[in-house]
Amino acid sequence: MKKAIVLSSGGIDSTTAMAIAKAENYELYSLTLDYGQRHKIEIGSAKKAADFFCVKEHKIIVIDLEQIGGSALTDNIDVPTCNHLDKVPVTYVPARNTIFLSIALAWAEVVGSNDIFIGANIVDYSGYPDCRPVYLEAFEKLANLGTKAGIEGGKIKIHAPLLEMSKAEIIKKGIELDIDYSITWSCYNPHTDGKACGKCDSCKFRLNGFREASYKDPIKYFT
Amino acid sequence: MKKAIVLSSGGIDSTTAMAIAKAENYELYSLTLDYGQRHKIEIGSAKKAADFFCVKEHKIIVIDLEQIGGSALTDNIDVPTCNHLDKVPVTYVPARNTIFLSIALAWAEVVGSNDIFIGANIVDYSGYPDCRPVYLEAFEKLANLGTKAGIEGGKIKIHAPLLEMSKAEIIKKGIELDIDYSITWSCYNPHTDGKACGKCDSCKFRLNGFREASYKDPIKYFT
Repeated sequence: MKKAIVLSSGGIDSTTAMAIAKAENYELYSLTLDYGQRHKIEIGSAKKAADFFCVKEHKIIVIDLEQIGGSALTDNIDVPTCNHLDKVPVTYVPARNTIFLSIALAWAEVVGSNDIFIGANIVDYSGYPDCRPVYLEAFEKLANLGTKAGIEGGKIKIHAPLLEMSKAEIIKKGIELDIDYSITWSCYNPHTDGKACGKCDSCKFRLNGFREASYKDPIKYFT
Repeated sequence: MKKAIVLSSGGIDSTTAMAIAKAENYELYSLTLDYGQRHKIEIGSAKKAADFFCVKEHKIIVIDLEQIGGSALTDNIDVPTCNHLDKVPVTYVPARNTIFLSIALAWAEVVGSNDIFIGANIVDYSGYPDCRPVYLEAFEKLANLGTKAGIEGGKIKIHAPLLEMSKAEIIKKGIELDIDYSITWSCYNPHTDGKACGKCDSCKFRLNGFREASYKDPIKYFT
């Protein structure tokens, strides 16, 4: 059975990417990064996703990106409720995907996997440089040059199956694959009662996605 | 004053790379990764190097690569005392330079630096895929595609000033730049009394380097 490392944040995208890897008959190795994010709820959702898909192993790696700072997702900077598409948003975490993919790559080498799944997509790009196809291609090239697996074994592939899909298409695909989206989390700015804010970029993308897909979002929002 | 992030492991190479960055008039931001390495002494040496060069800031980022495993440097695998140049050695840590450079890249973005120094070189390559020039070029390309700094600001450059130098040349350069090498550490397999083993790959490279450079290595070895 082929093995896949799946980067799992507990959100809609990574959980759908995991469902796709499972549907493609990979044995799943789920990887979550605990990087000092303000929205810790997502780590709980990643655990639920690991259970839901009966992964072979789920690793949660702690890395203190809070010490590095520079993002509204780790620092005490207000998370914006409107999105300015003309520039990189303050929720951008410096070099996050590069750090996450490199740790996934390390684990892939150790378990003998040539396949890494990431839920990156153009919609969530919204100004994030490290969600672009050209970036993911460059990482794949790097992965094959910089590892024992890449130079001795088969080719390492970065799978981003959601890259060209809208949020609505992702949700439709996930429902077709029987995902229970109530286990997922998206909000950047949850209320103290554990409900999603419904106003941050991430909630807006999610709510629009469910609306366009003609499904009801099963999670609770603060109203 | 231009700012540089310098990856600092406390060894001869990264300490010399730091001296070179200082000589090129960079303000120094020193970055050490505490990745569960068995030879923790090197972190103490990285602190001494930060003091020695009066860096602006020294960050020690903890990341648990022990959980990932796959290397004699983090796992309970014997560190070999002979080197087989025909294959990747067991001391190779999966994707280590990719992980380290990506964290350096994140910090570079935050402090507004376009320059990352790494002490990679061909001698220490000895089978490590992620010390090769072609790998470092691929990382530089990735860095410029995957960051806000890379797409909005100036070009990010990965400096590997020791890449083509032998260990003896590195040591000569460092002594010319007034490095006190007694603060550095290289041994993969230190004895309980805190002395270097003198037998592992890393000790051998170091001792040969001092011999060829016609200097006495100022650290103590177990005899």
